[in-house]
Amino acid sequence: MSSLFDKIGAELRRGLVQIAALSLLRERLYGYQLVKVLAASGLETEEGTLYPLLRRLEKQGLLTSEWDTQGSRPRKYYRLSDDGIDALPRLEALWSEISEAVGVILQSDGLVALAEANSK
Amino acid sequence: MSSLFDKIGAELRRGLVQIAALSLLRERLYGYQLVKVLAASGLETEEGTLYPLLRRLEKQGLLTSEWDTQGSRPRKYYRLSDDGIDALPRLEALWSEISEAVGVILQSDGLVALAEANSK
Repeated sequence: MSSLFDKIGAELRRGLVQIAALSLLRERLYGYQLVKVLAASGLETEEGTLYPLLRRLEKQGLLTSEWDTQGSRPRKYYRLSDDGIDALPRLEALWSEISEAVGVILQSDGLVALAEANSK
Repeated sequence: MSSLFDKIGAELRRGLVQIAALSLLRERLYGYQLVKVLAASGLETEEGTLYPLLRRLEKQGLLTSEWDTQGSRPRKYYRLSDDGIDALPRLEALWSEISEAVGVILQSDGLVALAEANSK
């Protein structure tokens, strides 16, 4: 059972982590900072989950990255690209829309009857 | 741009549609009914997206299905299995937890500073 549960949970998290990361990367952050901020906000995400998503978002053109080699170890910083800045409000609107829908569904028992009534 | 946007949106929807479908399938419904109820709730989902998810949830043991051949055309009805009934409250709790986290992230500008302060 727990593996089935984990699978759906993992998929859901992956979608949400992408939106959350894009939102946070209005500021320039390196990967591990992002892990910390996500965790502090209640969205625990392993580095092994986050880093491939960051690379993919960069490949899609929503993020840019640069290496900072000034410190004791090199760090890869990410931030929103111009396309990412354009996309963010639309992603936030999408999030509002579908999270509201899911909230309604989870909290209601009478939806099926309602939808059937509407479709007649 | 719109294809990148659609890709993240599609992934997010897939996770949410699974939770919403499990919640709705406390009642016995056939696939097209579910499409209608999801749409009426604001979660537009194409049949081509939903049906593979239902088959997968059944394969994972969270749903059971049965064919009803009484009507003018055979219909495949789904409902929660016993395992699905057990899993649903946990999925709902997961949803509350992570949707709240994402809401906080999207609405706040000061999180990075906060997390940094906490980690010192």
